[in-house]
Amino acid sequence: MPRHDITQCSATLPSLRSALAVVSGKWKLQILVALMSGARHFRGLERSVPGISTKVLAKELKDLEAHQLIARTVHPGPPVVVEYEALPYAHTLEPVISMLREWGQQHQQRLGTPLDTLEQ
Amino acid sequence: MPRHDITQCSATLPSLRSALAVVSGKWKLQILVALMSGARHFRGLERSVPGISTKVLAKELKDLEAHQLIARTVHPGPPVVVEYEALPYAHTLEPVISMLREWGQQHQQRLGTPLDTLEQ
Repeated sequence: MPRHDITQCSATLPSLRSALAVVSGKWKLQILVALMSGARHFRGLERSVPGISTKVLAKELKDLEAHQLIARTVHPGPPVVVEYEALPYAHTLEPVISMLREWGQQHQQRLGTPLDTLEQ
Repeated sequence: MPRHDITQCSATLPSLRSALAVVSGKWKLQILVALMSGARHFRGLERSVPGISTKVLAKELKDLEAHQLIARTVHPGPPVVVEYEALPYAHTLEPVISMLREWGQQHQQRLGTPLDTLEQ
């Protein structure tokens, strides 16, 4: 990348950080992928995202709602049913997810052993 | 995204996680951008990445080296000089960084107030 592009890059660190607030961490994108694959209920999401705890899933769903990427609907019962869905806006992340997946695939092959430095 | 694409997406979660190990968190991409902008020494990097602590910068540099994205060279002195540089491989992340920056820019505008949920 020529120097001026990088400078432009440095100048827009807030944009990068805004995207990283959504993309960062082990769970948010996995939850979005699960929702876009058709999971709609809390227990279904727990099953679709292996390793996630109930507490973390609840927190991440709230964050995704605050980022306007998903909607939570409560159907008054009985029984009360809570449904989650990926909003159309969430689909604007698809090219980002695809690009990360492609880069990650070659990175995994290059490194051989996985280097999972994700804490959360 | 049609259902089959998403299924493909779920099937390649390890690739996504491999990319997220590099991209996630507040610091790694900012450090890479600083290195690609010309910073070469520890103190220069500390200045280029506002808010980072000495301890976290040292840890992140080791992680980036393990991911084969940067090189650390020790020039025996006196005085001993330690230099860091982004390897050519790091530049394969440029389209990823650009796409994140673009998505982040519109996300920031959409949300109005920044939602910085990054812990680290």
